[in-house]
Amino acid sequence: MLADDGRLLDLGGLLEGRDLDGSFFASDGISRIRTAVAEGALPELDGDGLRIGAPIARPGKVVCIGLNYRDHAEESGAQPPAEPVVFMKASNTVVGPFDEVLIPRASTKTDWEAELAVIIGRTARYLESHEAALDCIVGYAISNDVSEREFQLERGGQWDKGKSCETFNPLGPWLVTADEISDPQRLGLRLWVNGQPRQDGDTKNMIFEVVEIVRYLSWFMVLDPGDVINTGTPAGVGLGGYPYLREGDVMELEIDGLGRQRQTVGQA
Amino acid sequence: MLADDGRLLDLGGLLEGRDLDGSFFASDGISRIRTAVAEGALPELDGDGLRIGAPIARPGKVVCIGLNYRDHAEESGAQPPAEPVVFMKASNTVVGPFDEVLIPRASTKTDWEAELAVIIGRTARYLESHEAALDCIVGYAISNDVSEREFQLERGGQWDKGKSCETFNPLGPWLVTADEISDPQRLGLRLWVNGQPRQDGDTKNMIFEVVEIVRYLSWFMVLDPGDVINTGTPAGVGLGGYPYLREGDVMELEIDGLGRQRQTVGQA
Repeated sequence: MLADDGRLLDLGGLLEGRDLDGSFFASDGISRIRTAVAEGALPELDGDGLRIGAPIARPGKVVCIGLNYRDHAEESGAQPPAEPVVFMKASNTVVGPFDEVLIPRASTKTDWEAELAVIIGRTARYLESHEAALDCIVGYAISNDVSEREFQLERGGQWDKGKSCETFNPLGPWLVTADEISDPQRLGLRLWVNGQPRQDGDTKNMIFEVVEIVRYLSWFMVLDPGDVINTGTPAGVGLGGYPYLREGDVMELEIDGLGRQRQTVGQA
Repeated sequence: MLADDGRLLDLGGLLEGRDLDGSFFASDGISRIRTAVAEGALPELDGDGLRIGAPIARPGKVVCIGLNYRDHAEESGAQPPAEPVVFMKASNTVVGPFDEVLIPRASTKTDWEAELAVIIGRTARYLESHEAALDCIVGYAISNDVSEREFQLERGGQWDKGKSCETFNPLGPWLVTADEISDPQRLGLRLWVNGQPRQDGDTKNMIFEVVEIVRYLSWFMVLDPGDVINTGTPAGVGLGGYPYLREGDVMELEIDGLGRQRQTVGQA
């Protein structure tokens, strides 16, 4: 973890060799971390040369909201939705924020999507209010909802087919706890390919806000601690007119207050 | 487990308190069970009064194939697909074969779907042949792909919205190992509601056969040990003209060689 004073602290002892996962959040793990920090119980970590993994080990599910920014709906040739568009990504797509992203074999349309990810900290089921929804959010992270557009849109049926390929969900580097984000609807998010700006949006332009997404989803499925919600992407993806990804390309993403990602594109 | 001689044997010791899950299959767990049975090392189990859970604890993902029987595509008003239609169910929908199924709040169109479930036993990634696909299947089970048709079809966007409600995937009772099913494309599958026959199909009528589904999917996602694939349903669902489920209804399902399920319908 990154402490307020800028030091990297080692959570390994506190986690007893396990990863950050849903059961850790469900058992009030964040409070245990806070206490350990206050007591000075966490050793400092030398991060040099360490791989940075996703800040949650293996989500129970990754739920995605489609067409949640008006400008992206427009570039996709779709109407802004009347209620949230919901689809899923296989949770084994989650990789670290600096890991390689692989273009699937036989793919010609691998695309990027910078998104604000919401991490669920307590069970959400038939929530009645936005306040209740906010209580279920443990934190936020950067997510790249990598998508294969031919698989998604031209191969029959449902979008999921183009959303679940290996390495298709870089997540992190940080899970920033909810208390540190004063307004999740005032976050700039940006993405570059090979240094060229592609996406430059703001969560204030979401059609459905974060708390509404969590409330809404809880009427269609039970959200468990550790689940991840990708809340949609603003304009500026390949589908909107930019060249799709090629081997050797570099994607960089950032969201205000959530840090920065960087992935090199490889070939599966 | 159910032994060849009809005795129930207790896997608890062999599993060391864990559940049957993907890592068990990945570490050749089925062979360890076989050895233990041959050595007479498993104690007999008195099953009286025990709840029967799903035969796999929490799949990494539940992948579903849509419209995979011609007669069901027809009753749904859809063309038979040119290639498999793929969608996902949240894996926390999986419950035991005799557990209660809950009609979601605000639902009027909760429906049933008897399906052959395929359980993955080893990692499947870019498989080149049906033989390789068969090698990745550890076994089969009965699955009820419960679906809310208004959520699925009339609420904007993708089918997943009507597929992931709480309790929407009764699975089991048995994971029947692949070697015991001589031909997965010659299995009758039947479903009754309140004793009235609703579905009476045969896996020989699948548009895409089991090995083709596994091969195909492996080009769009990595299938991990413990993943579940629902391979589609034959005609005879509520969407095709029968009354949708109401509180107090009873669903019964069976597939040749895989046993029988029974669920009472409750209200969330």
